[in-house]
Amino acid sequence: MSPTPVTFSTPNQPSSYSWEATVEEVAARYGVPMEDVVRFDVNTAPLPPDLAQRVMADGRFPVSLSEYPPSDYRLLVEAAAARYGVGTDEIVVGAGADEILDVIAKTFLAEGSRAIIPVPTYAMYRVLTEQRAAEAVPVPRLGAGEGYALDLPAMRDAAREAALLWLCSPNNPTALPEPEGVIETFLDMLDADAAADGRPAPIVVLDEAYAEFVGRSIADLRFAHPNLIVIRTASKAYALAGLRVGFAIARSELVARMNPIRPPASISTVSAAVVTEALKDDDLAATNVARVIAERERLTEALMEAGWSVGPSVTNFVLVDLESVDRAADAAEALLQRGLIPRTFPDGHPLADHLRLTVRSGAENDRLVSAVQAFEARADAS
Amino acid sequence: MSPTPVTFSTPNQPSSYSWEATVEEVAARYGVPMEDVVRFDVNTAPLPPDLAQRVMADGRFPVSLSEYPPSDYRLLVEAAAARYGVGTDEIVVGAGADEILDVIAKTFLAEGSRAIIPVPTYAMYRVLTEQRAAEAVPVPRLGAGEGYALDLPAMRDAAREAALLWLCSPNNPTALPEPEGVIETFLDMLDADAAADGRPAPIVVLDEAYAEFVGRSIADLRFAHPNLIVIRTASKAYALAGLRVGFAIARSELVARMNPIRPPASISTVSAAVVTEALKDDDLAATNVARVIAERERLTEALMEAGWSVGPSVTNFVLVDLESVDRAADAAEALLQRGLIPRTFPDGHPLADHLRLTVRSGAENDRLVSAVQAFEARADAS
Repeated sequence: MSPTPVTFSTPNQPSSYSWEATVEEVAARYGVPMEDVVRFDVNTAPLPPDLAQRVMADGRFPVSLSEYPPSDYRLLVEAAAARYGVGTDEIVVGAGADEILDVIAKTFLAEGSRAIIPVPTYAMYRVLTEQRAAEAVPVPRLGAGEGYALDLPAMRDAAREAALLWLCSPNNPTALPEPEGVIETFLDMLDADAAADGRPAPIVVLDEAYAEFVGRSIADLRFAHPNLIVIRTASKAYALAGLRVGFAIARSELVARMNPIRPPASISTVSAAVVTEALKDDDLAATNVARVIAERERLTEALMEAGWSVGPSVTNFVLVDLESVDRAADAAEALLQRGLIPRTFPDGHPLADHLRLTVRSGAENDRLVSAVQAFEARADAS
Repeated sequence: MSPTPVTFSTPNQPSSYSWEATVEEVAARYGVPMEDVVRFDVNTAPLPPDLAQRVMADGRFPVSLSEYPPSDYRLLVEAAAARYGVGTDEIVVGAGADEILDVIAKTFLAEGSRAIIPVPTYAMYRVLTEQRAAEAVPVPRLGAGEGYALDLPAMRDAAREAALLWLCSPNNPTALPEPEGVIETFLDMLDADAAADGRPAPIVVLDEAYAEFVGRSIADLRFAHPNLIVIRTASKAYALAGLRVGFAIARSELVARMNPIRPPASISTVSAAVVTEALKDDDLAATNVARVIAERERLTEALMEAGWSVGPSVTNFVLVDLESVDRAADAAEALLQRGLIPRTFPDGHPLADHLRLTVRSGAENDRLVSAVQAFEARADAS
């Protein structure tokens, strides 16, 4: 077996972040020029929208860069509310969706409380739960054949003792959404159980970082279910991960609890200005999504022709079943030797025999396909 | 008495942030055009350095804005290490000093642990302590006549049961540093007490946000006192508060504990690039500091001539003793009516009869002096 790929380091303590290797580190380790290194591991876009450079070059920000950003981020909040079709009192802004998740953990998770996490999913939910000294309770999702959907009876059972549930749909890293109507049904179940027990329903966080790629959101369920918090981001469909802006959408009662906990000025004035313009642009996300979908189908087909088992995806990434942990590690190493960084999963992870690959530009995807073809040719020859 | 000035809202829960009124809110409330509103309340600079716009217009960032920033922020860390004269393994970066404080609280404050806060000081220490469900123990500073210095015997006594101490020198809002040698003496005392009790010394955080204005730092004491963490920022002397970048300086053992807790990518790529260049510039902070010192002396003299009692300052702000809570409130209201926002302190605060005023540009300071002259003339006439 090859050495553990540098793209995923096992955390040395349970409540710590696991950092990805940087482009520089991969370049140095694999002897690849930095400009040839391509990240297929963090579900980003190949290029930012042109308006980012336009706003920066223009340099007319609502306040001078020598001042703190206005703590209410009014213009950004208004743009997000208009884009997502919610009230301005239903938006919380943060320095990336990660900060939103942290604010939620700080607001709703006391020491010793329980948070339910259907796994596999985004690792940060567990990290932030444990940083609150709360208990992260994993509930395994159904298998690949069932689209990695929530195990509703197990989730319902676990939720009885929970303060909060961390859901993600479309889910990272499984690339699929919950079947239509399932989250609504589940929210109804939680309400019924809470009413029967005479307690409030737990907070339900639904991370919709990839919502634009599937073209729907369940944020409107907040009217029937005031315990719902939906997460959105500028990092995926808006192609602005480098600016670090994310959002929560929730009923104003929950926003009023979260807002005092959020750091008053963690988003830079520049990031707020660029993302405000991006959210106002009706075509920006749609154009990127259309490009991703076309490339995703092309990439999926090419990878399958090369012999890889690529799962269905509604997102900007695909999950590949390499059928054994060793083969997954060998494949990751082969890609890294060409400067192509896949997302790997550590030993013991339910997807340790899988790789996750971002759908990138046509040329970048072609490099990935060539690398996979070479890997498979070598495997056939050996 | 006039209505409570909008510049300081009493937090409605102890562990919440107290947000300042925005420029827009002040403009609307006082009927002043937005462009005439000047913040004398948050210790910022009137203009950012030119290099900020240059870096943004150039638009050549180390990674595309569509990608996440490299989580190690290597170039920013290297620039900070060179500027502060420490090792690259002795720097933690954050989205403003506020995030650094939060990372420290998360790393070193368990539920029920104690943090000592000499008061009055920056309000965020208490907020972040209480967000950890730790106990914030206030220890009153000595009086104005003694430069609001630490009460060493009381601090030493309180520190015996403490996990952490939040110090700030030069201190906000009192505008003065601890006398030279005092913090070193205090660190020695803490070590002696810890050794006598057979326990580790508490973590000592020293917020040096205003260090450039006084021209010295005690970061070198980390060699003798590995429990020391020093905080620096790009928001004050570097005039880049809008970009949200701050730093911790500490021995590598402490950095290794803090770094996994910090959010891996909270600083935007743009902010990291601009602040990297600002830190490399040998003249930037020095020029701003020289300007502030000259203006501070001029402003202090003019305010005293107008009849105000202005305390000594080594920072970019001054503390004014208005001698009664009512007069402080009246003065704040008079300034606000001209769009000049002072920092006020709420009822019950030891400085409730004071205002804190940022040293700004010559023209802005002139507007402040005129407003004070008019306020005093009206007071004399009534």
